[in-house]
Amino acid sequence: MTRRGRFITLEGGEGVGKTTNLALVVDHLEAHGIEVVRTREPGGTPRAEAIRGLLLDPAGNEPLDDDAELLLVFAARAQHLARVVRPALERGAWVVCDRFTDATFAYQGGGRGIDASRIAELEAFVQRGLTPDLTLLLDMPMAAAQRRLEGRLDHDGGERDRFERERAEFFEAVRRAYLARAKAAPDRVCVVNADQPLDAVQDELRTLLDDRLEAWS
Amino acid sequence: MTRRGRFITLEGGEGVGKTTNLALVVDHLEAHGIEVVRTREPGGTPRAEAIRGLLLDPAGNEPLDDDAELLLVFAARAQHLARVVRPALERGAWVVCDRFTDATFAYQGGGRGIDASRIAELEAFVQRGLTPDLTLLLDMPMAAAQRRLEGRLDHDGGERDRFERERAEFFEAVRRAYLARAKAAPDRVCVVNADQPLDAVQDELRTLLDDRLEAWS
Repeated sequence: MTRRGRFITLEGGEGVGKTTNLALVVDHLEAHGIEVVRTREPGGTPRAEAIRGLLLDPAGNEPLDDDAELLLVFAARAQHLARVVRPALERGAWVVCDRFTDATFAYQGGGRGIDASRIAELEAFVQRGLTPDLTLLLDMPMAAAQRRLEGRLDHDGGERDRFERERAEFFEAVRRAYLARAKAAPDRVCVVNADQPLDAVQDELRTLLDDRLEAWS
Repeated sequence: MTRRGRFITLEGGEGVGKTTNLALVVDHLEAHGIEVVRTREPGGTPRAEAIRGLLLDPAGNEPLDDDAELLLVFAARAQHLARVVRPALERGAWVVCDRFTDATFAYQGGGRGIDASRIAELEAFVQRGLTPDLTLLLDMPMAAAQRRLEGRLDHDGGERDRFERERAEFFEAVRRAYLARAKAAPDRVCVVNADQPLDAVQDELRTLLDDRLEAWS
């Protein structure tokens, strides 16, 4: 196989500033002349986005079975990998993805309490060995993230979707699961303190990216 | 666990008369005083029906990845089992379901060529040992089924969905896979010759049901 592109994922709970910082990552790589495909999960293709819609839909309060939720997440992932991620990496582009399988371990595992071994089983089934080269985990204490999220919702005047309505303990469990993932894969996952001024967060991200760019060159 | 209801599935390709004969099965069981829950796959709950919608949607011709298709089928199944099938069986009702996992082996396995071991992996993951007590496989030669199907489509003046547009070889492969499933599980799967007058098909179905009712009583 020809040298492939790199696969970078951005992770973190609600309100940690993922969208803003994803743009920074993309811009920084493009400034180095790298072709970047920016995408997100669940979603990234029209079909996968339709699956995302089912995941976020309160659906008249019909409870979504844990297994069904997990299978939908991985169905969207399979489609996204087949249509977007693998083709981009194979032609040498880099992929920067807003959330990936660490989010499944954090939300469906930590948050909903689905056994990690069941998630790992589907991870192996769908990814067949493909994992991110680098994961940037934006982390901040729950209280700070909640304040940011509430500010954003007030600003949008928007309704909360099913996940946003989940209780604070859920988000605490998500955060713990993310940090556990980072601890288990310290070479891949870099924890970035997102509870500091944006400039400082972005300096940290640029430094991390520059280190990797050098290591990979 | 208290004595549970029985789980009966009806299988067969397009145009074999599944809908008509499903009604016969339900009526016959109800005439014996049995509480019957009639349902179908993929679908059977609003959320699972929404997943069915994604499976049937041509989606602007974005090809649906094989793994994604398989995971969607099993996501709908997990939801259906959790919300409809298991609760019904646990309270002692019988469930009569239009298509189940044999259809996955036939369509996604035989039709699309997905490895049966991958289907079996998800079957074990989702069903955790739950399998039908009886499967009625309506079988007829391809040419006869195609004639019936074309008559129905003309009658509806209807568009064909993604599956109905599949080519004839696909349906031949589906039929072969169904028959292989029957051969591998002869105690569970009864093959009914559907290429005979409706009265004769229904006599055969009633006899099969009466035999089981006696054996299970």
